[in-house]
Amino acid sequence: MNPRKKIIGIDPGTRMTGYGVIDDALQPIDFGCIRPPPKLELAQRYKILFESMEALIEKFQPYAVAVESQFVLKNAQSAIKLGMAKGMVYLAAARRAIPVYEFAPKQAKLAVVGHGGASKFQVQKMVQALLRLPHPPQPEDAADALALAICCAHHVRTQCLSQSKVN
Amino acid sequence: MNPRKKIIGIDPGTRMTGYGVIDDALQPIDFGCIRPPPKLELAQRYKILFESMEALIEKFQPYAVAVESQFVLKNAQSAIKLGMAKGMVYLAAARRAIPVYEFAPKQAKLAVVGHGGASKFQVQKMVQALLRLPHPPQPEDAADALALAICCAHHVRTQCLSQSKVN
Repeated sequence: MNPRKKIIGIDPGTRMTGYGVIDDALQPIDFGCIRPPPKLELAQRYKILFESMEALIEKFQPYAVAVESQFVLKNAQSAIKLGMAKGMVYLAAARRAIPVYEFAPKQAKLAVVGHGGASKFQVQKMVQALLRLPHPPQPEDAADALALAICCAHHVRTQCLSQSKVN
Repeated sequence: MNPRKKIIGIDPGTRMTGYGVIDDALQPIDFGCIRPPPKLELAQRYKILFESMEALIEKFQPYAVAVESQFVLKNAQSAIKLGMAKGMVYLAAARRAIPVYEFAPKQAKLAVVGHGGASKFQVQKMVQALLRLPHPPQPEDAADALALAICCAHHVRTQCLSQSKVN
C-alpha cells in the first residue's frame, strides 16, 4: 500500500484561519477553520493558532504547506497582524521541516477556476466540483485554503514533470 | 535576598532582532542581537528567531517583554515580514505566560531622551548614560531594545503607583 501524500492549504488571518487538506490525487481529506476566541489577548490567540497548526501537521503529516501571499493591505497594522498569523504557520511547518509554498490569491483562483479574477463564490463552486464535495465548502476561508492546496498540488506536479524532463 | 525582576526589550526585524535585558532598578544585564543567517529560507530564519527568543526567556526569566510597535512601513510585504518576526516574540512569551507590552518608537525615545523626535545616536548616548555603560550600546537595534526595556520599566512602575493610589 502506498499512502497518498497530503498537502495542507492555509488562508491565515488574525480572526479566522481557514485550512484545507487534500491528497495528491485531489481527494478531499478535511477542511475547516481555526477561530481563537476574539476576547483573548493577541499573544494567546497566536498561541492557539500555532498549536492548532502543530496539531494539523501532526495529524495529517503533509509533505507541503501552501499559504496565501498577500501584497495589498489596508494599512501597516493589519499587514503586521496578518504577518504574525502567517508566522505561526511558517514556524509550525519549519519545526517539522515541511516546506512552505506561497501562492498569490490570483494563482489559486487560476488553478481552480481558470482565471485570476474569479469571485469567492466561483472558487467555492469549483473547489466543490474538483474535490467532488456534496456542498460548496464553508466558510469561504476554508474554500480558499482548499484552493491553495489544489494550486500547490498542481505546482508540485509541474515541478516534478519539469525535473524529470531535465534529468 | 530579593532577586530583581527583569525586563527584555525586543526590536524585532527579519534580518536582525535587537534585544536588551535590564532589571527594574535600571541595571543593564545583557544586550545584543539575533541574526539568523540571511541565506537560510524564511521559515528557518523565523525558527531560529523563535528559538533564540525562547532561550533568552529561559535564561533571564523576565516578568515582561517590551516590543516596538510600528505604524508606518514602506509596503505590505515588509509589514508582513516584520509581523512574522514579531509573531515569534509574542509566541515565545505567550508560551511562558509572560505579558508583552508594545511601545511606539516615539514612546521609547520620550522615555530615554525626553522627546519623541530623538535621533538614533541620541538614543544610544542616553541609554549609555542611564544604564551607566562604558560605551554606547551597539548595534543600534540593541540600543533601541534597551530603550524599550527602560520605557517598559517606567510604564510598569507608573502602573503600580497609580494602582497603589487607587487601592
